[in-house]
Amino acid sequence: MPGKEISRQVVRRLPRYYRFLTDLEAQGIEKISSGKLAALMGLTASQIRQDLNCFGGFGQQGYGYSISKLRQEIAKILGLEEGTTAIIVGAGNIGRGLASYAQFAQKGLRLVGVFDKNPALAGVKVGGLAVLPSDQMASFCAANHPDVAILCLDSDAAKEVASLLISLGITGFINFSHYDILRDHPEAMVENVHIGDSMMTMAYQISRRKSDQTP
Amino acid sequence: MPGKEISRQVVRRLPRYYRFLTDLEAQGIEKISSGKLAALMGLTASQIRQDLNCFGGFGQQGYGYSISKLRQEIAKILGLEEGTTAIIVGAGNIGRGLASYAQFAQKGLRLVGVFDKNPALAGVKVGGLAVLPSDQMASFCAANHPDVAILCLDSDAAKEVASLLISLGITGFINFSHYDILRDHPEAMVENVHIGDSMMTMAYQISRRKSDQTP
Repeated sequence: MPGKEISRQVVRRLPRYYRFLTDLEAQGIEKISSGKLAALMGLTASQIRQDLNCFGGFGQQGYGYSISKLRQEIAKILGLEEGTTAIIVGAGNIGRGLASYAQFAQKGLRLVGVFDKNPALAGVKVGGLAVLPSDQMASFCAANHPDVAILCLDSDAAKEVASLLISLGITGFINFSHYDILRDHPEAMVENVHIGDSMMTMAYQISRRKSDQTP
Repeated sequence: MPGKEISRQVVRRLPRYYRFLTDLEAQGIEKISSGKLAALMGLTASQIRQDLNCFGGFGQQGYGYSISKLRQEIAKILGLEEGTTAIIVGAGNIGRGLASYAQFAQKGLRLVGVFDKNPALAGVKVGGLAVLPSDQMASFCAANHPDVAILCLDSDAAKEVASLLISLGITGFINFSHYDILRDHPEAMVENVHIGDSMMTMAYQISRRKSDQTP
């Protein structure tokens, strides 16, 4: 259970630390200095020491950090082992891709349900679960109290579903739609994933670079 | 062709404006005041006027903005109609999901190729294109000069492929892997999409809220 409050900026960086430490551990490396970790992650050693100090700091002068200890500690702070449960709403390509690929357990979530309003998809297995029809969402939530809903829907459907899910006790959303959940539900916790925005930003950068090259 | 330099912050917000304006246009609405657009987007009217002033500003006092004009102008600034081309590398679930679902044309990119090293996938149609084997990437790039590569690979494969693609003339990456392209290739343009980080951040928020509720 995390003790003191950690700044949002540091929290945002923790998944990245966690990923690098997981890779290092998988390579059989046991300890690392702040300098080496910094070089690996493209940060400065003092930034790393500062970040890790925020939650107790486990480095020893002249020895470095124990990778497995540090990784466990970050997992604990992130609450990765607390059994937070998630459902996917919308079993289209993105929903199915996530269910099959996203390694939920490693990311601190347990996938417990996948829903789609298309009756043709009911019963189809994705990520080890059979897709359920959307009209079973209410009874499912009443029985299982999932924490998080991952919305793989278009904006209109997402708006409708978000209201329903909040009334059913869901507090967190990972939102792949363009619907702005926080505007209507400021009390919700929302992580937006806007792949389309990344694509447009990339198109902009390419067109800028091209126009710079042909003045 | 965009004229003056626009700040990175404003550019980052443009896709969001573009999305809202596209929705409004689809609803048949012709003009909107900065106040109404602000309420819709959860911004202040002065923020909107400031942003839109950055690239000329098309509002008229007491009339508002012409939605289609503003949308076209933003499309022009973002370079959405300049035929930027993209390939997907990795035709796993996420790669296939993107190819089929991501509405490339609306996002300013034209999908011209999908590659996978798994020979069993060669010829499978995704997003209207037949998957090509990875060993054809070099000849494909030499012939077609794609601008952007979308990496739907694990970190190790992404590292290898990024180096290769840069040597083949690719300058932009949309990166779904955890490999840090900019660390090795600071000259590249990179948009990272880290779905796993969003999942971990969400797990953290849920566990915080739970621990706040059970002191």
